[in-house]
Amino acid sequence: MKYKTQIEAARKGIFTKEMEYVATNENINRELLIKEVSNGRLIIPGNKNHKNIRPVAIGELSSTKVNVNIGISKDCPDKDVELKKVKKAIELNVDSIMDLSCWGDTRDFRQNLVEVSPCMIGSVPMYDMIGNSGKALKDLTKDDFLKCVKDHAIDGIDFMTIHAGLNKKTAQRVKRNRRLTNIVSRGGSLLFAWMEMTGNENPFYEFYEEFLDVLYEYDVTISLGDGCRPGSIHDATDASQLEELITLGELTKRAWAKNVQVMVEGPGHIPLNEVKTNMIIAKKLLFNAPFYVLGPLVTDIAPGYDHITSAIGGAIAASSGADFLCYVTPAEHLRLPDEDDMIEGIMATKIAAHAGDVARKFPGAIEKDNNMSKARAELDWEKMISLSINPEKSYKYRQSAKPDKEDTCTMCGEMCAVKNMNKILSGEEVKIS
Amino acid sequence: MKYKTQIEAARKGIFTKEMEYVATNENINRELLIKEVSNGRLIIPGNKNHKNIRPVAIGELSSTKVNVNIGISKDCPDKDVELKKVKKAIELNVDSIMDLSCWGDTRDFRQNLVEVSPCMIGSVPMYDMIGNSGKALKDLTKDDFLKCVKDHAIDGIDFMTIHAGLNKKTAQRVKRNRRLTNIVSRGGSLLFAWMEMTGNENPFYEFYEEFLDVLYEYDVTISLGDGCRPGSIHDATDASQLEELITLGELTKRAWAKNVQVMVEGPGHIPLNEVKTNMIIAKKLLFNAPFYVLGPLVTDIAPGYDHITSAIGGAIAASSGADFLCYVTPAEHLRLPDEDDMIEGIMATKIAAHAGDVARKFPGAIEKDNNMSKARAELDWEKMISLSINPEKSYKYRQSAKPDKEDTCTMCGEMCAVKNMNKILSGEEVKIS
Repeated sequence: MKYKTQIEAARKGIFTKEMEYVATNENINRELLIKEVSNGRLIIPGNKNHKNIRPVAIGELSSTKVNVNIGISKDCPDKDVELKKVKKAIELNVDSIMDLSCWGDTRDFRQNLVEVSPCMIGSVPMYDMIGNSGKALKDLTKDDFLKCVKDHAIDGIDFMTIHAGLNKKTAQRVKRNRRLTNIVSRGGSLLFAWMEMTGNENPFYEFYEEFLDVLYEYDVTISLGDGCRPGSIHDATDASQLEELITLGELTKRAWAKNVQVMVEGPGHIPLNEVKTNMIIAKKLLFNAPFYVLGPLVTDIAPGYDHITSAIGGAIAASSGADFLCYVTPAEHLRLPDEDDMIEGIMATKIAAHAGDVARKFPGAIEKDNNMSKARAELDWEKMISLSINPEKSYKYRQSAKPDKEDTCTMCGEMCAVKNMNKILSGEEVKIS
Repeated sequence: MKYKTQIEAARKGIFTKEMEYVATNENINRELLIKEVSNGRLIIPGNKNHKNIRPVAIGELSSTKVNVNIGISKDCPDKDVELKKVKKAIELNVDSIMDLSCWGDTRDFRQNLVEVSPCMIGSVPMYDMIGNSGKALKDLTKDDFLKCVKDHAIDGIDFMTIHAGLNKKTAQRVKRNRRLTNIVSRGGSLLFAWMEMTGNENPFYEFYEEFLDVLYEYDVTISLGDGCRPGSIHDATDASQLEELITLGELTKRAWAKNVQVMVEGPGHIPLNEVKTNMIIAKKLLFNAPFYVLGPLVTDIAPGYDHITSAIGGAIAASSGADFLCYVTPAEHLRLPDEDDMIEGIMATKIAAHAGDVARKFPGAIEKDNNMSKARAELDWEKMISLSINPEKSYKYRQSAKPDKEDTCTMCGEMCAVKNMNKILSGEEVKIS
C-alpha cells in the first residue's frame, strides 16, 4: 500500500476506491474531489479496520452531513437499548454515529457498533478512559490517554474527538475572562480539571504528534474538540472561544503536515445574529478544514425543544460554512435521549442540513423541494408522503384525519387553494357547496 | 369621543388607555410609542366591541408577537374542541388568535371566542362568507363581501385579513408567470376564481374605501392578505409576489390616510438565503408597516415537521423585520392541527420570535437567556424548569430519567461539566468514581 490515509493518497495522486465511491455516490467531480482531499478541505473518514463502512465525504464540496450520538453510561447501561437506537438511526439514513460510551463494557459495545454500522463511527476516547480506567482523574497519565486512543483506533473508530486546543494558556484565559457558564464541554472540563490538579500541560496538546502517529496508522480522522465552546448565548464568540479556535487552526496544519485527515468542532450556543460571523471566522482560522457544529442553539430558554433551537442555528450555519451537524434532541439539558427523542433530533437536524444546502445552492438540493411541490400541485398524496423527510409520520398524520373530499385535506377542505386553482386554470367552475 | 382608532388618537396627540397599557406592560417609551402609532409603524389592534381585550402592540418597537389559528369547519365542526384549544392557547400566553371558521354556526362561535379571549382576535371574513352564504361562489356580490366584514366588525374582531392586493392586473401577472404551486392562499385562490368567473375586479380592491370606512368605525386593524404568497421554495420572491407587495404598499398608505390601523401579511415558503431580503424589501415597500409572516418555511420536504421549517424561517424573519409570526404546526400540509399539534406550533413559534428578539437586541430579551444560564451554572434544576419556555414539558423530561447523582442529569452523569467546573474553580478535587 502506497498510502495510509485518504489525504496522503490524494497528495500522491492516487484515486482510492473510497474516493471513487464518494465521487459516484455524491456526484462529485473526480478532479475536484482529489484536489479538495489533498488540501484538507474535504475528508472521507474511514478507519482501515472498519471494514463495512460506506464512505461519506464531509466538506464544502459535499452535502451537509448529520451525526447522531449514542452510548452506554452509568445512567443507561443497557447495550441493547443503544444498539436498537443505532439500528433505527441507520434506517433513517444518518451519515454518522458517535459513541459517547463512558461506563460498562465499552469495548465490547464499540466493537459491536463498528461491526453493525455502515455509517462512520466517531468517539471521544477520553470519556471511555476516564469512566473505565479505575484510576482517579488526577492520576491519569499521558500513557493512559495514548493507550485509549490506540484501543479505539484498533477497534475501527473512524473519527475521534481530541480536545487538543484547550491548553494551559487558554485555561488561564478562561480563568481571567469569567463566563456565565464556564466550560460546558465534557471533555474540556475534565481536561481543565486535570491540568489544574496535576499542573501539567494538556497531553493531547503537549504530545500531539504522538497521537497523530496513531491516528495516521489507521486513517482515523482527528476531530479537534472545542473545549471552550460557549454554553450560553451570553458566552458566545468570546475571548476563550476564539483563542482556542486559533490554536485549533495551528493544530489543523500540523495534522495535515502528518497526512492525518482533520475536521474541527464548533459551538454551541450562539445568538442568531452571530452564527454566520462564527462560521466565517472559523473557516478562515481553520484554513477551510471541514467544520462540525453542535447546534448552534440560538436561545437558552427552551429545554425540551432544543432540537428546534438547534435546527435554527444549524440551518444558518450550514448555509454559511458548517459542513457537518451534530444532532441535538428535545432531551438536551434534561436527560439522556430515548429513541423517540433521537428520531426528533435526527429529523430536525436533517431539515437544518437540507435547508442550508438549498440556501447555498448545493447541486441537487432544491430539486427535492421542487419534486414535493409538483406532487402538491397535483394533489398526489401518495407521492407527497413518499417524498417527505419522514414518510411514516406524514402517513400517520394523513391517515388520522379523513377529509370530506378525498383529494383535499382537513386543513382547508373544499376551500383547498391547490384544487381550486387547478380547476379555474383549466377553465372549470369553482364551486363551494 | 374625539377619535375612532388608535392611529387617529395618536395623530391628535391623545394618549389612550390602550397606549397606556401597552407602554407599561411592554415597557415602551410613551413619546416614542405615540409617534410610532401615529405614523403607522406600531399598531395596537382592538375592536371597540371587544371589551375584555388586553391590548398588545405590534411593530418594531415591541417584542415579536405570536398568533395561533383555530376555527370550525366541515371537517372539524365541533365548537367545544376548538374552544378547548383556545383556552389552552390563552394559558400558553399567545398574543393573538385567528378564527378561520368557514362552516357551521360561525357567528355563534365567533361571539363566544371574543367573549372568552383577552387576546386579540383576527379573522378572514371571506372564508366565513363563502362557506356559509348558501350562494355559489360566482354569484357572490360586493354587498355580500361588505356585509360579512361588517358582521365580523360588529362581533368584535380586532383585525381582519382582507386580500385587497390581488387585483385583476396581478391575476394576469400570475397567469403570465406560471408557478410551480400557483396561488396557495385560500383567500387569494377564491378571489382569483371569483374574478375569473365573474370578470369583475376584486371587490376589496375596487371598493377599498368602503371597507376601510367599516373598519374605521370599530377600530378594526386591516391585515392586508398576500394572495400571491409563494407556496413553494421554487416560487419565492417572484414577479407575482412582488407586484402584489407593491400594491399592498399603496393600500397601506390609503388605509393610513383614513386613520385605519394596518399590518401586512407576508410569505410563506422562502429559501433561507432569501428570507432577510424579503423582509428588507417588504419593510421598504410597505413604509415600515408592521409585517406579519406565515413561517416562512425554508424547505418543502418536511410535512410533519413544518413547525420546525417555519421556526427556522420565522427566527430569521423576526431578526430582520417581521413583527408578528403566525404559527405553523406539525400538521401543516397534512391535516387540521389537534391540540398537541397546536402546542408544538406555539412553542416553535415562540422560540422563533424570541430568538429573533435576542438577535435584534430587543431590550430585555437576552436577560431571559442569561437567567436560564445562571440557573444552569448553579445546577438549580427547579429554576431551570420554571424559566423554560414550557415548564410542563421540561418537568416531565426531568422526572422521567432519574440520574445516579441528583444534581446532575442522565445526559453526562458524574461527568457533568457544570458540576466539575464549579468544583475545580472553587479549589475542590474532581473525582470520577
